Amino acid sequence: MAEQDDPVLKEFRDSIDNIDAALIFLLAERFKVTQKVGCYKKDQQMAPSDKGREAEQINRLRQLAVEAKLDPEFSEKFLNFIIREVIKHHEQIQAE
Amino acid sequence: MAEQDDPVLKEFRDSIDNIDAALIFLLAERFKVTQKVGCYKKDQQMAPSDKGREAEQINRLRQLAVEAKLDPEFSEKFLNFIIREVIKHHEQIQAE
Repeated sequence: MAEQDDPVLKEFRDSIDNIDAALIFLLAERFKVTQKVGCYKKDQQMAPSDKGREAEQINRLRQLAVEAKLDPEFSEKFLNFIIREVIKHHEQIQAE
Repeated sequence: MAEQDDPVLKEFRDSIDNIDAALIFLLAERFKVTQKVGCYKKDQQMAPSDKGREAEQINRLRQLAVEAKLDPEFSEKFLNFIIREVIKHHEQIQAE
């Protein structure tokens, strides 16, 4: 049987697709807030990145990951991946 | 005023922190499903990765990103980031 016709795999994949849609809409909301942060920081002449804040976020997410039974290393990699994108946006805003 | 004492920035950051908690708990659910997929694929002697399925997921998420006003390029990078982790898990399961 081809993988796309396997009913067990299809049920799993339907759940993954639902979760992915939720992740995309949440990420869109997150970037709406960080765009506002970027504009505010430009307005207030604050630096685009804040290492102290990032360290706090990483610690907090690692703790939440343990609670959620998610690999804390992965949660840190995930946050760094998102923050890299946010800093890029902030730098673009500052350059405007 | 120090950034951590700025009330405007604090309100934005509280929203970011709430969204991040939601993202972490959703990602934990996603990996619970992909772990089941990994075990099932091993059991059925299926390959850990499926390029056809990945291409479908990328197309779908890019469309959802447009709807959510999120950069479609970012949604594709995000999915690739998650899939890399999933394939790593699947390969670990197959090696067990």
